[in-house]
Amino acid sequence: MKLIVKPIEFETGGKPILIMNKQDAEFLGLHSSDRVLIKSKKKKIISIIDISDKLVSPGEAGANIDLCTRLNIALGHSIDVVAAGTPESVRFIKEKIQGRRLNYKKIKAIIEDVVERHLTDVELSAFITSLSIYGMSMDETESLSKAMIQTGKKIKLPGKKLVDKHGIGGCSGDTTSMVLVPTVAAAGLTIAKTSSRAITSPAGTADKMEILAPVEFKIDEIKKIIKKANACLVWGGTLDLAPADDTFVKIEYPLSIDPLMLPSIMSKKKAMGSKYLVIDMPTGRGAKIKTVGAATSLAYDFIELGKRLGIHTACGITYGEQPIGYRIGPALEAQEALLTLKGNGPKDLLEKVASLAGILFEMVAKNHIDGKKHALYLIKSGKAYKKMKQIIEAQGGDPNIKPSDIEVGKKHVYVRSNKSGFVLWTKNAEIAAIAREAGAPKDKGAGLIINKKNGDKVKKGDILLIIYSNNSAKLDSALKLVKEYEPIVVGKSYEERLLLSKVPAKIPHKRIFLLER
Amino acid sequence: MKLIVKPIEFETGGKPILIMNKQDAEFLGLHSSDRVLIKSKKKKIISIIDISDKLVSPGEAGANIDLCTRLNIALGHSIDVVAAGTPESVRFIKEKIQGRRLNYKKIKAIIEDVVERHLTDVELSAFITSLSIYGMSMDETESLSKAMIQTGKKIKLPGKKLVDKHGIGGCSGDTTSMVLVPTVAAAGLTIAKTSSRAITSPAGTADKMEILAPVEFKIDEIKKIIKKANACLVWGGTLDLAPADDTFVKIEYPLSIDPLMLPSIMSKKKAMGSKYLVIDMPTGRGAKIKTVGAATSLAYDFIELGKRLGIHTACGITYGEQPIGYRIGPALEAQEALLTLKGNGPKDLLEKVASLAGILFEMVAKNHIDGKKHALYLIKSGKAYKKMKQIIEAQGGDPNIKPSDIEVGKKHVYVRSNKSGFVLWTKNAEIAAIAREAGAPKDKGAGLIINKKNGDKVKKGDILLIIYSNNSAKLDSALKLVKEYEPIVVGKSYEERLLLSKVPAKIPHKRIFLLER
Repeated sequence: MKLIVKPIEFETGGKPILIMNKQDAEFLGLHSSDRVLIKSKKKKIISIIDISDKLVSPGEAGANIDLCTRLNIALGHSIDVVAAGTPESVRFIKEKIQGRRLNYKKIKAIIEDVVERHLTDVELSAFITSLSIYGMSMDETESLSKAMIQTGKKIKLPGKKLVDKHGIGGCSGDTTSMVLVPTVAAAGLTIAKTSSRAITSPAGTADKMEILAPVEFKIDEIKKIIKKANACLVWGGTLDLAPADDTFVKIEYPLSIDPLMLPSIMSKKKAMGSKYLVIDMPTGRGAKIKTVGAATSLAYDFIELGKRLGIHTACGITYGEQPIGYRIGPALEAQEALLTLKGNGPKDLLEKVASLAGILFEMVAKNHIDGKKHALYLIKSGKAYKKMKQIIEAQGGDPNIKPSDIEVGKKHVYVRSNKSGFVLWTKNAEIAAIAREAGAPKDKGAGLIINKKNGDKVKKGDILLIIYSNNSAKLDSALKLVKEYEPIVVGKSYEERLLLSKVPAKIPHKRIFLLER
Repeated sequence: MKLIVKPIEFETGGKPILIMNKQDAEFLGLHSSDRVLIKSKKKKIISIIDISDKLVSPGEAGANIDLCTRLNIALGHSIDVVAAGTPESVRFIKEKIQGRRLNYKKIKAIIEDVVERHLTDVELSAFITSLSIYGMSMDETESLSKAMIQTGKKIKLPGKKLVDKHGIGGCSGDTTSMVLVPTVAAAGLTIAKTSSRAITSPAGTADKMEILAPVEFKIDEIKKIIKKANACLVWGGTLDLAPADDTFVKIEYPLSIDPLMLPSIMSKKKAMGSKYLVIDMPTGRGAKIKTVGAATSLAYDFIELGKRLGIHTACGITYGEQPIGYRIGPALEAQEALLTLKGNGPKDLLEKVASLAGILFEMVAKNHIDGKKHALYLIKSGKAYKKMKQIIEAQGGDPNIKPSDIEVGKKHVYVRSNKSGFVLWTKNAEIAAIAREAGAPKDKGAGLIINKKNGDKVKKGDILLIIYSNNSAKLDSALKLVKEYEPIVVGKSYEERLLLSKVPAKIPHKRIFLLER
């Protein structure tokens, strides 16, 4: 059926959509969400349709910007539309619903159709849900990783011994990457760290680094930065390393499931050309992974997948029972990273960075070395800080920025303890929720400083938290959450707090902890 | 946020959609597919949003017809929009993904949000997929049925001893309902049969009955028809008996899964006030249920669920290895129903109707009777035909319509056997696909007549099928399918055809058999 293009502006998250008039759709026997094959002069693609009575007249084809771009069409152009069958990959998704294992060919067909946007939300959600319920074999995990690499961009970076670090998240205030990257680079290794922005946390590494320097670059620009500083700290969002993953995250996020964590992380590392990789796994009751046993199992999977993809992988299972460092929020954490590099940082952050960097050093070294000791030397000697200044400069920031130059929220409020004792435990996810309520990560100055950490002595009236925001309404609402959540639990003894949590008859709907890659 | 209504015509299958400008959405921190609470002067509802740059300007609220109707708003009205949290039912869907059993309260929350259209396709698909993978306990099945009844309309029909019949489908050309309903009513029982139109079959009962009389009625009109004829054969599509099911079907259909079959069928029967129910389960290699064993398990579930809902339920497991009768397609099957009622129908259809009606008679009777014999008497004596004329008249059709008055496709083509022997087997689903290719159910005259059935002797050159259509291109394309599918397999002996099917290295994507309620 020939139709005349009428561009219609519609946000679909990159999905090409064709809007057909009801009459035309009926003539072709099409319903909403059916697929059609659309041919323009030179290109053809499969698209999902929507049906409208009035947005387009019979004979017109409403095309959103994604469709116009991909078909290279504009107002008044003519396109040819025919009904398209169900893609073969849908049959493979049905096999997965039935619990069958999928081979590489079938997984690749699914991933290709995900990238080409041929699948509907119903089909994608059925796939992700099935993966989450059945789990994946290592063969499937490998196939998914390889298919995601094959459908994405690969980057050939300058420099030898490309190393990388990834944190699976779940620990608020964790500024490890911003200290580890310059430390590793100061040792002469090349580390091209791509990070995400916050989805559900108060600050992603990209959000924090942006306080010190720009983080959005094209691939060629990243190569230039690496040439200058043999390191970078950039946003990975537009590099298109594993475009299938962007689509999967949109399905996983509302369902709070994350069956694709391994292939999603490892495919991006492979696409960046990483040869040595350390994975940070914060483990603890309030973190994403609850026990060392669970973390160990997952670590073996990472290491095995790394082998299959040609990445030397090691894992560090780290203490995740409370936030790392004291500061939470983009600006506050950027401050803490700089303080640490200048030798004035919190002990736990320093310890964590040195341990993880040490693992990398020991992997790369030909002879036996004490990696952690070397890492501590690089930080304490100022070499890591010097490297950070190079990175900031290479990314276009001011290398002489001082922690005190960084603006935090104009308004702040103290949260004081109403009893004496010591900090029994700290609630990670609740701390993150409070920082977000205060405005982070959008309000870069928003967040909080934790004044007392697990085991610290507390007197009645002592400051537990300082919450920052640029908006007083948000500050109030964060303070309300503090009262509701009791994020830092103070008591005289553990015996006094045997009741860990109350579950009332009517469970309130708390939505505080979600996946973050 | 106050917005001014701008109606936008968009087909969303009954789902209210609000389109917001990107700026406004960002201000409220909303993404595509997020939920908002919308308040008009007197009403408020939760709606899912879409985001557009140009369809609506900042300050405008694009509202589709469903949203306008439900909020009673029009162009220029002012509405108030705030971000709405994730509904509680999403938490219960997540519990189902984790394999937990859901109680009535949780299931009801989900069903209510389904009916109110508060859930996204991603959430709905995750729910349906999880149900399909884990299966449901009988308690969950009961809860789902009751929640679906509670969120739908209930009908109080005149007449005592309300009986009903349901076929779970999968057998082409099955015209049982159109003969059974007048037979049962001729015995003095009341039977208000609601049927569906075809979704994936060549003809639903509603499509066939529409050849003889109108089938779309409001509840009050159905009551009048029942008063006149103590029976009806109407379309159930607009009665809103279990509105949640309409939404579920849209998810299940593309995934070819049907986890809600029991609650979906039984909730509608309960809503119609049925007291006695017989379920027809066509069983055979080409049908939906493959073995008598599987059918028996399912039958016990139907009977147990019937008990819990207060419906006396019995099941008939019927021969489903080939189509019932000879004619397939709306007009052709209407002919066959009339022929059978007039004493000239195919033996298998007569046998099937009498057996199933007999089960109902024996359930309802206080003393021992031979139900099947009674049913055969009612048909052979012409009493059932007389009742059918009453039903046709009560629904506004011409009671004197003759089979020969019914127009079938103007064009037809013979399919002849290229060898001698006998019919070894017949492919149900493939027969349905061919009839649909010929144009059924949209082209009411399209379809086919089967000339030879399982076990019949065939000489080379004998007619196996006659295909009808009003469109020669469709006739050609149906003929092509015949060649590809070999729907009627002729041979000298079973030994000759030990190879049942070839599975080539590259599997062609056949999409011929799908759920139909």
